[in-house]
Amino acid sequence: MKIKVADPTGFCFGVKRAIDALVKALSEYGRVYAFGSPIHNSEEIKRLSKMGLVVIERVEDIPENSVVFVRAHGVSPVIMEQIKERAGIVIDGTCPFVRKVQCRALELSKQGYFVVVLGDKGHPEVKGIIGHIKNDKFVVVSSPSEIEVDKISSFDRIGVVSQTTQKIFKFKELVAELIEHVDEVRVYNTICSATFARQKAVRELATNVDGVLIVGNHDSANTQKLVEIVKLCGCDVMHVENIDEIKRGWFKGKEVIGIAGGASTPDWLINQVIKQVQRIAE
Amino acid sequence: MKIKVADPTGFCFGVKRAIDALVKALSEYGRVYAFGSPIHNSEEIKRLSKMGLVVIERVEDIPENSVVFVRAHGVSPVIMEQIKERAGIVIDGTCPFVRKVQCRALELSKQGYFVVVLGDKGHPEVKGIIGHIKNDKFVVVSSPSEIEVDKISSFDRIGVVSQTTQKIFKFKELVAELIEHVDEVRVYNTICSATFARQKAVRELATNVDGVLIVGNHDSANTQKLVEIVKLCGCDVMHVENIDEIKRGWFKGKEVIGIAGGASTPDWLINQVIKQVQRIAE
Repeated sequence: MKIKVADPTGFCFGVKRAIDALVKALSEYGRVYAFGSPIHNSEEIKRLSKMGLVVIERVEDIPENSVVFVRAHGVSPVIMEQIKERAGIVIDGTCPFVRKVQCRALELSKQGYFVVVLGDKGHPEVKGIIGHIKNDKFVVVSSPSEIEVDKISSFDRIGVVSQTTQKIFKFKELVAELIEHVDEVRVYNTICSATFARQKAVRELATNVDGVLIVGNHDSANTQKLVEIVKLCGCDVMHVENIDEIKRGWFKGKEVIGIAGGASTPDWLINQVIKQVQRIAE
Repeated sequence: MKIKVADPTGFCFGVKRAIDALVKALSEYGRVYAFGSPIHNSEEIKRLSKMGLVVIERVEDIPENSVVFVRAHGVSPVIMEQIKERAGIVIDGTCPFVRKVQCRALELSKQGYFVVVLGDKGHPEVKGIIGHIKNDKFVVVSSPSEIEVDKISSFDRIGVVSQTTQKIFKFKELVAELIEHVDEVRVYNTICSATFARQKAVRELATNVDGVLIVGNHDSANTQKLVEIVKLCGCDVMHVENIDEIKRGWFKGKEVIGIAGGASTPDWLINQVIKQVQRIAE
């Protein structure tokens, strides 16, 4: 049995950078308080917790002078200020691409634009982005159909940014809708290609193997999306969170196996799975 | 027989404003040199010529200290400068909406944007617009398919404007194409609604009458478009340049007649046609 691994797969640049910084801080300080879960992967959380990670959800739970980690999604300036007031040391894991969206939103707002953000309203990344806008002249829409034409038409200048993980076709539709009703529309394409490069890699894999093993949390949206892609390609799929979930029977009759991880699946976990499959193949 | 006149129809705001200024100048100075034909309507040109209009195509043909008229399409700053050097008086008929496109193109260029203009390359309005850009960092495209992705992707910031008479769906497609490949796209929707308001009025008319009489030059593109719209509505159409071309037989059996003029058809000509039809109806 042959094994092919999707490329790229697993952590994106921003998540890898954040988790590397977190691991370094854990090695250095022993105890680090993460403001919000640093990664949507229970195996990785287990590992980091053993190293001294404590996940907190509220600023009030930050102990005085502690080491606090801000995840790749980033936070609003108000929250960052509150964190800095309480913490001794802040490890800022904000993804540089997310930082760019925050900066663009701030700049546009400062220059008098009404800001439209394409994104999921409750998502931490989106909360962080809109937190950078100092007034109430913005709106978050998850789809172009949410645009209220009457309201939008009342502005001469509109600025548009996107949560990094949104789909480009939605962004295009949104901008097309806006330019029909507003004199000036200033668009920053802040979509990151990492998510889609990973999906594309899985699509290619699924069309060239007898089955794909997807590694990642069962409740991770981006991992579920990869499972769905494999199914749509008419290829057999097995979704596991760890090596204990791998079923030997699934490999029966398969000559070439593909392996891919969700965007929140660490390399070490993907490698564990690869080794386990190699053992089964022997 | 009833008569219904399309509303709006005939001259748009910019053309009316320019021709009014030209007529005023002709009354005042007797002889006015128009740089390029002021209106695409032979009947109106005949009338204005009788008042003292001389159409010239080259700056060299401007007599010293003469009165020169610049039509609604506008000209580039270089041509305007040359005209001013030779002419005694310049009557600037540039449509304020076209002027806005020229200003937007200039501003974008000054601010370092590569400028994309949606328009017909050889059109006088487009020549005037790109003439405002002081460097070679611009391109004119008549359709989104003309965009060269490799070239476009090499710019971080792109500014987009449109010739005033372009279609909004093309403009939307163009912008959608650009935002996929460029970080920042700053869009000014400089399309004027006048053309489409006139087309819409003809469409409504054609669905409510037994035949539509279109008044305008046989070789005028926008007038031909109105004729086409009437045909597409399955309605009978007669296209005339003047009252002499009206055929009595066409009205036979028709109870309600619609009348509309092209964007370059003057009111007095439309009114002549209305009166002639009223006479036929009596």
